[in-house]
Amino acid sequence: MSASRDIDSLIDMMARLPGLGPRSARRAVLHMIRKKELLLTPLADLMHHVAASVRECANCGNIGSADLCDICQSEKRATGEICVVEDVADLWAMERSAVFKGRYHVLGGTLSALDAVGPEELRIPRLVERVTEEGITEVILALNATVDGQTTAHYIADQLEGQVRLTSLAQGVPIGGELDYLDDGTITAALRARKEL
Amino acid sequence: MSASRDIDSLIDMMARLPGLGPRSARRAVLHMIRKKELLLTPLADLMHHVAASVRECANCGNIGSADLCDICQSEKRATGEICVVEDVADLWAMERSAVFKGRYHVLGGTLSALDAVGPEELRIPRLVERVTEEGITEVILALNATVDGQTTAHYIADQLEGQVRLTSLAQGVPIGGELDYLDDGTITAALRARKEL
Ligand SMILES: [Zn+2]
Ligand SMILES: [Zn+2]
Repeated sequence: MSASRDIDSLIDMMARLPGLGPRSARRAVLHMIRKKELLLTPLADLMHHVAASVRECANCGNIGSADLCDICQSEKRATGEICVVEDVADLWAMERSAVFKGRYHVLGGTLSALDAVGPEELRIPRLVERVTEEGITEVILALNATVDGQTTAHYIADQLEGQVRLTSLAQGVPIGGELDYLDDGTITAALRARKEL
Repeated sequence: MSASRDIDSLIDMMARLPGLGPRSARRAVLHMIRKKELLLTPLADLMHHVAASVRECANCGNIGSADLCDICQSEKRATGEICVVEDVADLWAMERSAVFKGRYHVLGGTLSALDAVGPEELRIPRLVERVTEEGITEVILALNATVDGQTTAHYIADQLEGQVRLTSLAQGVPIGGELDYLDDGTITAALRARKEL
């Protein structure tokens, strides 16, 4: 019974991934089994590699394989601009648009009284330090257009008032919309038309 | 760059799974990374176990961990009935309905002149042998209600004519419908109302 039990466990675990349910998990597992050499084994290898090497950047909260992520390590990205995003998915969305050349600060969420998420949990004190340490001239607040996202943006703006140019993504981000759902062109337009806070 | 490159490769490979695209693959990979100990590492382990142990049943074509699958090994399933299905997803769908107590024969597709799929590729000669060897009294043709599925059902019925009771799933299977898309209740009803060919 062991292969069947492993297959069942694999389906259950795949079904917990966002966007997959029991049915698509079953299809995915059967597909992987049919393509064992091309898909199942390489996927397992890659997952082990990623699990062993992935870590959070000590500077910005991005994902990388060293104490500092690729972007924080790259001197080319020291443009004096920091783009503040809620999570790594948003950072990836910004990178796909390939318009922003500076560095990021990944909050890992938004301020929330309900969930007791305060500024420390969101690395906001570290952001304030970075502005001085890295000689930052502009902070772009690329937070989602949700109530919590905008509350967080205003809190950060208060902390950095007078120290740096503060901008936010403008035109193109729909009300209630989330960055990661937007196409690259919309993000590009929103970044180009960014406005002073 | 190595973690990022591994993460990119992982996203690309996940995006090739049925039901996932680039966006859901990115979400799934980020989710797995956030739950590294609970999800990423256990998934990689399970995939390796499955890749190492999974094999095709020599008797029926089902997936298992030995030369004979669990169902072919179980004496309880020797009811004298064989249910013929196109693929393992359909076998799983039948098993979820938990109404059928016999064994299966997994064709691995349907006869197709276009794709040059003949009876040998579909284990049809082996099915004919099994009817004698296992003392089968009824063969239930649970093939999809597609043109190729029905062509295949008629071909099998011709081969087994006069040797065995031949039935097919009836009421409840919509025209052009595929078994794996049906709910368990529909499959149960279709099996209970099966009709003579
Ligand atoms: Zn970093
Ligand atoms: Zn079997």
